[in-house]
Amino acid sequence: MEGHLIDSLTLTKALDKIMSMGGEFEIKKFRVGKKKHDTSYVMIAISGEDSDHLDRILLALHPLGARVIEAEDVHLEIAPQDRVVPRGFYSTTNHLTHVRHRGAWLEVEDIQMDCLIVVKDGRAVCVPIGQIEKGNAVVVGTAGVRVVPPERPREKTFFEFMSNEVSSERPSGEIVKQLAEEILATKRAGGKIAVVGGPGIIHTGAAEALAGLIRDGYVDLLLAGNALAVHDIERQLFGTSLGMDPHGNLTSAGHRNHIYAISEVIASGSIRQAVEDGKLKGGIMYECIRRDIPFVLAGSIRDDGPLPDVITDTVLAQKAMFEALRGVDMVIMMATMLHSIATGNLLPSRVKTICVDINPSTVTKLMDRGTAQAIGLVTDIGIFLPRLAEEISCLAGEADASGA
Amino acid sequence: MEGHLIDSLTLTKALDKIMSMGGEFEIKKFRVGKKKHDTSYVMIAISGEDSDHLDRILLALHPLGARVIEAEDVHLEIAPQDRVVPRGFYSTTNHLTHVRHRGAWLEVEDIQMDCLIVVKDGRAVCVPIGQIEKGNAVVVGTAGVRVVPPERPREKTFFEFMSNEVSSERPSGEIVKQLAEEILATKRAGGKIAVVGGPGIIHTGAAEALAGLIRDGYVDLLLAGNALAVHDIERQLFGTSLGMDPHGNLTSAGHRNHIYAISEVIASGSIRQAVEDGKLKGGIMYECIRRDIPFVLAGSIRDDGPLPDVITDTVLAQKAMFEALRGVDMVIMMATMLHSIATGNLLPSRVKTICVDINPSTVTKLMDRGTAQAIGLVTDIGIFLPRLAEEISCLAGEADASGA
Amino acid sequence: MEGHLIDSLTLTKALDKIMSMGGEFEIKKFRVGKKKHDTSYVMIAISGEDSDHLDRILLALHPLGARVIEAEDVHLEIAPQDRVVPRGFYSTTNHLTHVRHRGAWLEVEDIQMDCLIVVKDGRAVCVPIGQIEKGNAVVVGTAGVRVVPPERPREKTFFEFMSNEVSSERPSGEIVKQLAEEILATKRAGGKIAVVGGPGIIHTGAAEALAGLIRDGYVDLLLAGNALAVHDIERQLFGTSLGMDPHGNLTSAGHRNHIYAISEVIASGSIRQAVEDGKLKGGIMYECIRRDIPFVLAGSIRDDGPLPDVITDTVLAQKAMFEALRGVDMVIMMATMLHSIATGNLLPSRVKTICVDINPSTVTKLMDRGTAQAIGLVTDIGIFLPRLAEEISCLAGEADASGA
Amino acid sequence: MEGHLIDSLTLTKALDKIMSMGGEFEIKKFRVGKKKHDTSYVMIAISGEDSDHLDRILLALHPLGARVIEAEDVHLEIAPQDRVVPRGFYSTTNHLTHVRHRGAWLEVEDIQMDCLIVVKDGRAVCVPIGQIEKGNAVVVGTAGVRVVPPERPREKTFFEFMSNEVSSERPSGEIVKQLAEEILATKRAGGKIAVVGGPGIIHTGAAEALAGLIRDGYVDLLLAGNALAVHDIERQLFGTSLGMDPHGNLTSAGHRNHIYAISEVIASGSIRQAVEDGKLKGGIMYECIRRDIPFVLAGSIRDDGPLPDVITDTVLAQKAMFEALRGVDMVIMMATMLHSIATGNLLPSRVKTICVDINPSTVTKLMDRGTAQAIGLVTDIGIFLPRLAEEISCLAGEADASGA
Repeated sequence: MEGHLIDSLTLTKALDKIMSMGGEFEIKKFRVGKKKHDTSYVMIAISGEDSDHLDRILLALHPLGARVIEAEDVHLEIAPQDRVVPRGFYSTTNHLTHVRHRGAWLEVEDIQMDCLIVVKDGRAVCVPIGQIEKGNAVVVGTAGVRVVPPERPREKTFFEFMSNEVSSERPSGEIVKQLAEEILATKRAGGKIAVVGGPGIIHTGAAEALAGLIRDGYVDLLLAGNALAVHDIERQLFGTSLGMDPHGNLTSAGHRNHIYAISEVIASGSIRQAVEDGKLKGGIMYECIRRDIPFVLAGSIRDDGPLPDVITDTVLAQKAMFEALRGVDMVIMMATMLHSIATGNLLPSRVKTICVDINPSTVTKLMDRGTAQAIGLVTDIGIFLPRLAEEISCLAGEADASGA
Repeated sequence: MEGHLIDSLTLTKALDKIMSMGGEFEIKKFRVGKKKHDTSYVMIAISGEDSDHLDRILLALHPLGARVIEAEDVHLEIAPQDRVVPRGFYSTTNHLTHVRHRGAWLEVEDIQMDCLIVVKDGRAVCVPIGQIEKGNAVVVGTAGVRVVPPERPREKTFFEFMSNEVSSERPSGEIVKQLAEEILATKRAGGKIAVVGGPGIIHTGAAEALAGLIRDGYVDLLLAGNALAVHDIERQLFGTSLGMDPHGNLTSAGHRNHIYAISEVIASGSIRQAVEDGKLKGGIMYECIRRDIPFVLAGSIRDDGPLPDVITDTVLAQKAMFEALRGVDMVIMMATMLHSIATGNLLPSRVKTICVDINPSTVTKLMDRGTAQAIGLVTDIGIFLPRLAEEISCLAGEADASGA
Repeated sequence: MEGHLIDSLTLTKALDKIMSMGGEFEIKKFRVGKKKHDTSYVMIAISGEDSDHLDRILLALHPLGARVIEAEDVHLEIAPQDRVVPRGFYSTTNHLTHVRHRGAWLEVEDIQMDCLIVVKDGRAVCVPIGQIEKGNAVVVGTAGVRVVPPERPREKTFFEFMSNEVSSERPSGEIVKQLAEEILATKRAGGKIAVVGGPGIIHTGAAEALAGLIRDGYVDLLLAGNALAVHDIERQLFGTSLGMDPHGNLTSAGHRNHIYAISEVIASGSIRQAVEDGKLKGGIMYECIRRDIPFVLAGSIRDDGPLPDVITDTVLAQKAMFEALRGVDMVIMMATMLHSIATGNLLPSRVKTICVDINPSTVTKLMDRGTAQAIGLVTDIGIFLPRLAEEISCLAGEADASGA
Repeated sequence: MEGHLIDSLTLTKALDKIMSMGGEFEIKKFRVGKKKHDTSYVMIAISGEDSDHLDRILLALHPLGARVIEAEDVHLEIAPQDRVVPRGFYSTTNHLTHVRHRGAWLEVEDIQMDCLIVVKDGRAVCVPIGQIEKGNAVVVGTAGVRVVPPERPREKTFFEFMSNEVSSERPSGEIVKQLAEEILATKRAGGKIAVVGGPGIIHTGAAEALAGLIRDGYVDLLLAGNALAVHDIERQLFGTSLGMDPHGNLTSAGHRNHIYAISEVIASGSIRQAVEDGKLKGGIMYECIRRDIPFVLAGSIRDDGPLPDVITDTVLAQKAMFEALRGVDMVIMMATMLHSIATGNLLPSRVKTICVDINPSTVTKLMDRGTAQAIGLVTDIGIFLPRLAEEISCLAGEADASGA
């Protein structure tokens, strides 16, 4: 193993794994990075009860970046049938991964967690079980597979700062400011930012703030469900969301405006056409259309309608989300558990991920399900998002002023 | 208005609505039910600012069971296009509803909330917007529509008992006992019980208890997602769920067993075939297959695989759930927010609904979204469900003994 | 019973109680308020199984404002010993209450819930069990006691608006605005506002906002514990709270600055002296001292130190809180469960009470314990409070401008 | 630094601290424990910007067990006044600590977090600020202080098992079983177990289970507040808790029985006397009295009454709790945030601590406030505790049987 083994906890986790699985170890060589920027190297001899036990230990160490000394080619087995996997297949992490094939190291493309690696035409691609085809050459075992887990950043960044702390008792105003800086820095570096949003954004009165962020170019992709889009359009067409007016009063319209909003878009044929027909003149979806910001609306069994733009097949929706997320550098998840977890499943661990929700269990579940890079903010989206938008526009203004 | 107006809050709500909407009222006649089982009758003259204002007030009173004195036929308008609704359409509640058509009162079939009423061939049917077809005669306005909101039961039942109380500090053991009695009473009366379940049932160690309830005939329908079925099958095939063994230890298998489980079922072709192939020999899905208990597995964008039995199109899944729920008398929702809310949307208000979750927000959201008849239990499903199963089998045993 | 019986639910609750307790009723007279501002009057004949059963029913109806037709004097019994209560004592509600003594109706002074009524020297006073003295004449039974439960306000106010709605999905920004208006209206009408606060106010970065509200005269009383005061003073003296700097970084000072802050105040002798010594130059406690705003710091077993100003005896602290709360019109509870519930216990139901916390269970528990008039806001105090302060100063500025 | 530096994360945390504080380091010597049971040793040269910066880094490293190479005596300074601390005082952790005084290493007695160390008569004692007396010789700086943070256990125990896992989705039944084993093992080894409990234990119907555990000798100390004791006694005397009967029905007694229960104990003079008077014949407090199990009832500002046994002064209550907790090996906290955090403050880190609550924020807050050794269980105490009691009695029975 090589890298920042000590301060990234890698060595600790490795020894821990060996012991917890009942193995024995001896540290053969240990070259510790003496100064801050040096990397370390460790060679460990591991012994298990038998060959099978040893294999299980090696398998567990694999995601930490451990590799057996003699590099060998990956072993491949052929998928016997569509969506049927060979025994012993290698199950991916969401970290940068290489496989050794015919003596060359190939970077695995489209890496995402809990998938398989298929080698084909000199390329290695990460493939979910649902897309495995009969005849695919699938990597089995860990031999020839090298994982590079993300190291903790040396510089203090927002993400480092946040993950240092578990408490919910943090200075919220300060956090908004730091997130605003992070967003601006990402955009200035040419990065792409995706927003994953739930209908709570509209109910809590934060729709205008999100529409503003899209209009000002801070959002490069929107992932949501039918509900966010319908509520946003209902608010534009009728001034209500689920029949509640912007002052929080329930109108007699009840759910009817919600259905009308869907009907109007169906009558136009699509959200884009509703904009072109002059029906839809503002809001989140309008800004996406007007600025050609891509969006994916994924269906769920709670949906009314749904809108014609919604991808009702969940397998196709996953694919569309995955394609849209390629090249994204930062994801901000707001007020949705379903779409946040689904998006987290598709992201490589290198993507900065922040999850904002009033309900702490959304954040907990996201991380439980493997999106370990996500940091969580437990706050009220209805006040948080407008303040974030203000902070960004304020910081951007300052930057312009000082640049002029 | 007629019925148990006072103790069911109906009159209070009605006067409240009128006042909050700025209307004036005068109670013209009030015949109060003098004794416990008498119904009351009230005639109220309402005046609004103008005809439009008055209509809005009447619209708001409608779901409470109010009707204008002269019964007239419903007004119908033709849907101009598939999934496009006529202006002013009547938006349904989830209560028993009748419409007057050609002088006769028709009970609206398939009632569910937030839908439209289509009159065709002398029948009135409740139809979601997504199934409205060009040419359908859709009810508009409230004239000729009569709603019968559920009255609060006079007898003390479990559901009455529970809804009396808001506190989470209730005697849990006692509640389990009462729910067990309610389940037994429902089954003895020939009622049908549906379970809506999330994967937490398996993670928390309650799978065997649910499998037992199915085996013993207490479950007539299972609504779930891909995750519950896969975890259940993984546990049967490999002894793990998401790689965690029944003692809560994470094995090195991690997510691989999860994928293997999916692959095995795909190789067989279906869960039923996996049972017939002798692969699957126990657990929740096995008991459903063995006893021919219908189940609907609805897809979501979080799914791995999915299993071949999963309906991946959310619109088709909704339809399948709706069909399966016909005639169900009681629904027990456990450890799933998505499926609980989706099911709640499809239920008439007469169905006894109980929602069990460790997270109080699941219950709150369910009721916010209109499933007002649901009662909530905030508890740990991993201990609750085994205890419920024990209690049922104990009570059933007693009954058998005393019957013999 | 007399009053707005129908729209305030009173009649419904009364009939409900009778039935749930197994009683029979017949409505003898019912004069319904025909128009909006009319009150209603109902006379109900109730029959129980026996005299004891009937008494229990009457007891249960009592808090709803029911009274037996023939007004008689209250029955009094003598407390046999300090803090020992006579059997059958009347347990108070937190509503306006009168007792008939020697033919005259006396308003019960210092009403608070779950206490006793002592009649002495022609006055009736509400007394907690801990302050009952041997020889006190204590009201027993419900005869001669009249309760006036608060009626729901006819006009739409903030408190009415909020309690209409159970969902947490409300437009937060709008709610802040309405609360700001309510605070200004209360102050303009000469009302008194108390703030009950926890240390989360400082940790989340909202201390400056609260200090500003005190400075600007919007707070007439502060109820808190040792922690809020110490963290506030630590922040002023050392720039940290529990060793965390305002940017959320943990400094190496850890808990030491917290202890230093306590030590400095002890060295001065009191918070006031620390201000006069020039040690403390800003913050929440400083503004209280400078403007002579009373505060009560009540001790708890979690405290470090504590500060010399803290009342460590909980019985004395309760008394001090009760005295300080006399004449308060509105209470805003923020980020503390212990002090919120303790304060709620001491308040008459006529006091407008709002409870703000990120944790919904604080609000739920407050209401479970009888502070039914409280409305809850689930939000992030760190962003909420600064925005509230801004909104108030903005609205106050507008009013000044239009007044000039 | 010496010890299991790698697998206990100590080295990682140390390097992390140095870097995050802007220091530079060079690893001079590193002797790694080659096999499982070997300890490691590392010598690191650290350089800071200046002497002050370096001191701050050393201060931060101190709690991790780092010590400067040349052992010197601790520096002592005299407290100038009661409860006033010398500048630069050493603030304690809750780990085993030694100080070097006159060349000898003294173990610090009564260690608890966030206190001072006073050296007197050849002994070193941990003293809270509130008990510092004028003239005490207080340790300042870190020189001569050695901290031994707890190392993670090598053997798989319940506590190790639980802390491995963050998810709330764990097999609850299995956890109950393992906790039962841990309790039995602690008792068999002659250990002492304290229970910290809130009134939720009684409301949720778990009182009998706790009373049984006390009766059977599994509880050596009970820490609680007035509410738990009153509800328990109310339940024994009147069959209700806060007026709710064991079936969860609210009786008309409302809060009166609660007050009666207090009054009865006051009339007797104490809980013990109420037992001796034959008034109190069962329940939690009765079992404590009957078996001479010590209990501390600490007052809070929410209390009614309170009972004569309650220590109303919070400073005295803290002292009583601290004294009572001496020598305790395991603490089980149930359904109380206030008493759990207060107890956590007083515990050395070597005490096994488990916190059981339906509300995850209780656990989070406990750990945020420094009780890092605590493990949390989010479950329903009303079902959990009876099942735990059953499991313990079942395991104990088996052991007896096999022993016979």
